[in-house]
Amino acid sequence: MSDPHCIFCKIIAGEIPAFRVFEDDTTLAFLDVGPLAEGHLLVIPKTHYERLDQMDPDALTKLTGHLPRLGLALMQVTSAQAYNLLQNNGNEAGQVVMHVHFHLIPRKPSDGLGYRWLASSYAEGRGEVIAQEFKATLDSLAP
Amino acid sequence: MSDPHCIFCKIIAGEIPAFRVFEDDTTLAFLDVGPLAEGHLLVIPKTHYERLDQMDPDALTKLTGHLPRLGLALMQVTSAQAYNLLQNNGNEAGQVVMHVHFHLIPRKPSDGLGYRWLASSYAEGRGEVIAQEFKATLDSLAP
Repeated sequence: MSDPHCIFCKIIAGEIPAFRVFEDDTTLAFLDVGPLAEGHLLVIPKTHYERLDQMDPDALTKLTGHLPRLGLALMQVTSAQAYNLLQNNGNEAGQVVMHVHFHLIPRKPSDGLGYRWLASSYAEGRGEVIAQEFKATLDSLAP
Repeated sequence: MSDPHCIFCKIIAGEIPAFRVFEDDTTLAFLDVGPLAEGHLLVIPKTHYERLDQMDPDALTKLTGHLPRLGLALMQVTSAQAYNLLQNNGNEAGQVVMHVHFHLIPRKPSDGLGYRWLASSYAEGRGEVIAQEFKATLDSLAP
């Protein structure tokens, strides 16, 4: 349920202070202590999971059900008209704390933030191949 | 339910082709036609909502309940060990198609992708103020 070495589990337990903004039985939202913008939130499950793909779907949906209201509050508090939801899985994806967390990042014009968008395209026939591999893999992972 | 001018609503209706990888009554996943990496997925609700904060929580949780399995499949198909979940709300956040969509982006070492991470910190006392504003705002938005 919790990992004794995990900083977010310690925040959940109240052993490390944080600026908490919302919590219920399953979910906690608090200010990122190193914000990309004022009001940058972290939303985490109270049960320790390392990655999104390891989460119990019920714990995940309880958390995500709070996101619309947290998004509205983020805009009201920060006067931002826009925001990113970002969730990183694995070191190569930029995950630093190995407890699932969703960033809600307020965005304003010319803030210098955002995802590096280096788009490519599929060679003729390659999209069909990848889509077929997804379908076969998803079938093998059927609940 | 659908917007006649929305390209994603046209994909849902089958009026525009896409490499579909998964769908059920409420959710569709397909390959991004301008991928940041091979296998880059878009996951969308079949009902037209512009932004996360406008979504019916039930439609949102039905969609997000599929994300763990889609994340696992993404790693298997692409051989990536990591991935980002990204969802942009509003022009200033990089949203281009005004129909809620979740990006699942495979990540590999030195791929040049990721979020621009320009962290700051809160001045003494400022975190408390912002957290209190969130609590008051969330109370005013109570379901």
